Amino acid sequence: MASERQFSRRTLIGGAGALTLAATAAGPASASAATAKRDVDVAIVGAGLAGLTAARDLVAAGKSVVVLEARDRVGGRVLNLRLANGQVTEGGGEFIGPTQTRMKALADSLGVETFATYNTGDNLLYKDGKRTPYATGGPLGSVPPVDVAGLANAAIVQASLNDMAKQVPIDAPWTAPKADEWDRQTFETWLRANAVVPSAKFLLDVACTSIFSAEPRELSLLFVLYYIAGAGDADHPGTLERLTETAGGAQELRFVGGSQLVPVKLAATLGDRVVLNAPVRSITKSGARYVVSADGATVTASRVVVAVPPPLAARISYDPLMPASRDQLTQRLPMASVAKAIAVYDTPFWRADGLNGQVVSDSGVISSTFDNSPPDASFGALMGFIEADKARQLDAASEAEVRAAVLKDLTTYFGPKAAAPTSFALHRWNNEQYTRGGPVSIAAPGVLTQYGRSLRAPVGGIHWAGTETSVYWMGFMDGAVRSGERVAREVLAAL
Amino acid sequence: MASERQFSRRTLIGGAGALTLAATAAGPASASAATAKRDVDVAIVGAGLAGLTAARDLVAAGKSVVVLEARDRVGGRVLNLRLANGQVTEGGGEFIGPTQTRMKALADSLGVETFATYNTGDNLLYKDGKRTPYATGGPLGSVPPVDVAGLANAAIVQASLNDMAKQVPIDAPWTAPKADEWDRQTFETWLRANAVVPSAKFLLDVACTSIFSAEPRELSLLFVLYYIAGAGDADHPGTLERLTETAGGAQELRFVGGSQLVPVKLAATLGDRVVLNAPVRSITKSGARYVVSADGATVTASRVVVAVPPPLAARISYDPLMPASRDQLTQRLPMASVAKAIAVYDTPFWRADGLNGQVVSDSGVISSTFDNSPPDASFGALMGFIEADKARQLDAASEAEVRAAVLKDLTTYFGPKAAAPTSFALHRWNNEQYTRGGPVSIAAPGVLTQYGRSLRAPVGGIHWAGTETSVYWMGFMDGAVRSGERVAREVLAAL
Repeated sequence: MASERQFSRRTLIGGAGALTLAATAAGPASASAATAKRDVDVAIVGAGLAGLTAARDLVAAGKSVVVLEARDRVGGRVLNLRLANGQVTEGGGEFIGPTQTRMKALADSLGVETFATYNTGDNLLYKDGKRTPYATGGPLGSVPPVDVAGLANAAIVQASLNDMAKQVPIDAPWTAPKADEWDRQTFETWLRANAVVPSAKFLLDVACTSIFSAEPRELSLLFVLYYIAGAGDADHPGTLERLTETAGGAQELRFVGGSQLVPVKLAATLGDRVVLNAPVRSITKSGARYVVSADGATVTASRVVVAVPPPLAARISYDPLMPASRDQLTQRLPMASVAKAIAVYDTPFWRADGLNGQVVSDSGVISSTFDNSPPDASFGALMGFIEADKARQLDAASEAEVRAAVLKDLTTYFGPKAAAPTSFALHRWNNEQYTRGGPVSIAAPGVLTQYGRSLRAPVGGIHWAGTETSVYWMGFMDGAVRSGERVAREVLAAL
Repeated sequence: MASERQFSRRTLIGGAGALTLAATAAGPASASAATAKRDVDVAIVGAGLAGLTAARDLVAAGKSVVVLEARDRVGGRVLNLRLANGQVTEGGGEFIGPTQTRMKALADSLGVETFATYNTGDNLLYKDGKRTPYATGGPLGSVPPVDVAGLANAAIVQASLNDMAKQVPIDAPWTAPKADEWDRQTFETWLRANAVVPSAKFLLDVACTSIFSAEPRELSLLFVLYYIAGAGDADHPGTLERLTETAGGAQELRFVGGSQLVPVKLAATLGDRVVLNAPVRSITKSGARYVVSADGATVTASRVVVAVPPPLAARISYDPLMPASRDQLTQRLPMASVAKAIAVYDTPFWRADGLNGQVVSDSGVISSTFDNSPPDASFGALMGFIEADKARQLDAASEAEVRAAVLKDLTTYFGPKAAAPTSFALHRWNNEQYTRGGPVSIAAPGVLTQYGRSLRAPVGGIHWAGTETSVYWMGFMDGAVRSGERVAREVLAAL
């Protein structure tokens, strides 16, 4: 096991990397500097999109704020990796799509532009050792060419999930009329009863691991429906397609310069209110105020916003103690398991073959891929997700072993040119000290109905943010931004 | 929210309590004393039965040891509460039974005697508003008098569970031939397919909450089978009956003077090797040694034994980081939800009514009870478990509210005399800072097959103990002792 810093370094090709990006941005101070003690209105734990957005809104309302960040960079689960060619690629969250309006507005306000994820040409299905191109789009979205019975079954299952999701009150899924029934079984149990054609089960399994980086057996059916319900906004009910699709879905757009530009630029507007290298260890009530103690920094505040994933919020020591409902919730929202691998080439050669770079596969270590090239296609990049069981199986593998497995897969899908990238980047979120999995917390049966009420409920002067607390687009950058905006309103109403 | 100390105080009637018991015992030092820095062979985190047993065996082998305990008492989930009448009752683990030989041997070695749990007279079934006494024992154990179809169904389900449990390799449940099938569904899903008669489902539900303090929907079927398989020893395959029964089962015997006498006396033999008030915050490798930092104490050691529940082990900061397989395991083994309520009377009046004090109920806040009177019956005590959903629903209730609900139940079961106890004790493990639930960690679907291998696997020089790591009697005091003995052997082989 290496330390977090070692992991970060290992994942960066060409020396300079994400840490440099953050460090050279204007603003953030380090915990060892003159920041040792501060007295503010609101202390915020975590400089991901949620914490930074909350800070922006609180500062705009005239409040004094400090954001304490454990890492030596901002952005949380959003991370630019520097490539050997001097360009960047994304190691974490990177896409946005329709109805993800809050992330879009934030990026717009910071001058970070979007561009369409490359989506011209055919998708590829790799199944039973056979490679079949297929067209994107159509009434059912991009449905891989499996047997007709499987397609019909998958369409019915998809429609059922969307219908059931409509019955889930998005701000209180535990009040759904069938909440008890849906929260007592795994998604796997439900799929086995409904996706009865093997190829339909395959398609749903791939959708599940692609969306959650978790296997269907790990998830409560209610949690899956809640997540689908959240893939929209007040005017557009959430759908499974909006989670899985590229055009018209959550993978539609990318950010010019890499998604981490958004939190980096946002942090820059906050100046030395953002303190890096300051992992928070304890939050202690002292009279009407809270003392937030981090390595190298102590902040006193009237209100505290904790904007880190639930399993990490559990690792902070609270005095007074968290109520059992909150503590046991944080014991029950583990992070899923994900890594991202990016192979870089001189050109996006697959485009000339009529392929869009998107694969759905029944084997290998990467079962879904995207064309991650920059907007000007000045180089080519293929990005593959390593997810759920496959991520876990590679957690202890060396980077060379993972690289070999990924390049084998890419060669199978895209031909021999894929075997020789000019550089290769790998980011393994399970091994990151201040995330320990990804992209998002998941809930097993029984969690939402018994503990869901504690997801957002403030405890005294302590408020909760982070994508897991968002009503819409939980698990996405947009959910993080929404949670930051919501928590800022909550705190302002209370101050 | 009150601090942990406040919770402890609230649960103690009559002033003096468990803390006093521990504090007056010979031995343990406090972290604020001369114990500030020590250099030993083995540092042990947690002075529950597991940590103390490991310490005993390591000391016996000539090794130097320090046990760092977060609380101001030893015993972990084993706790004597002082009653208003000057006697004690148990707020935590209290029973032992057949095949729990390691806990029995430990108690014997310390001169702590056992006595039979009171089991003379009839059990009570309270169901559909009706109170029905029934005899204990018989070929199927103590089966409440439900309809014949329900009894037949329950017997078949019980036999099936025992048969399936026999197919679970006790030291590696993830290798069971049907591990994948059993680990992809909740126990609830399996029960609904198999306990099809409503009264049979009721009996199995009560068995589940009584055993796990969790609802069937929270548990992987494989985890339930693994737990049943562990309710025995190498010569006696585990059975469901051995978990649920009083005579012949895990509730057969109690300890004279209260179960906490065992860890208190064991700690006394270790003298100032046990350091109280020393919550461990970090474990850092430094060359070939580890630095274990606690509030008020720092210990340097060649090996470290972490003997606390998995969700609390996750709250220690490790450098180097834990591997993902271990960290994500500890995100996925939440504590179940339990409180114990004990009502004390001048006499065990129910005995004169021909009742043994044991109830199975379909309503109220306590769905199972025991006669918790001392061996000489110098006073009477009824103990009720508040478990799973019922415990969660009362987590935020005042002690007066819980007391009123418990006494209402006891009056329903045992008549008007139960309404006026001479004293009342309540211990709510969900609210305890250094347990945060109980009696034991539980596993949802997918956890054992993907993460079970990390339960006991040492990470460098860090070894794992605690009842959750025991092959036999996980979740019981016997499992804790077995885990301490196993980890001591493991460390001695490595030193």
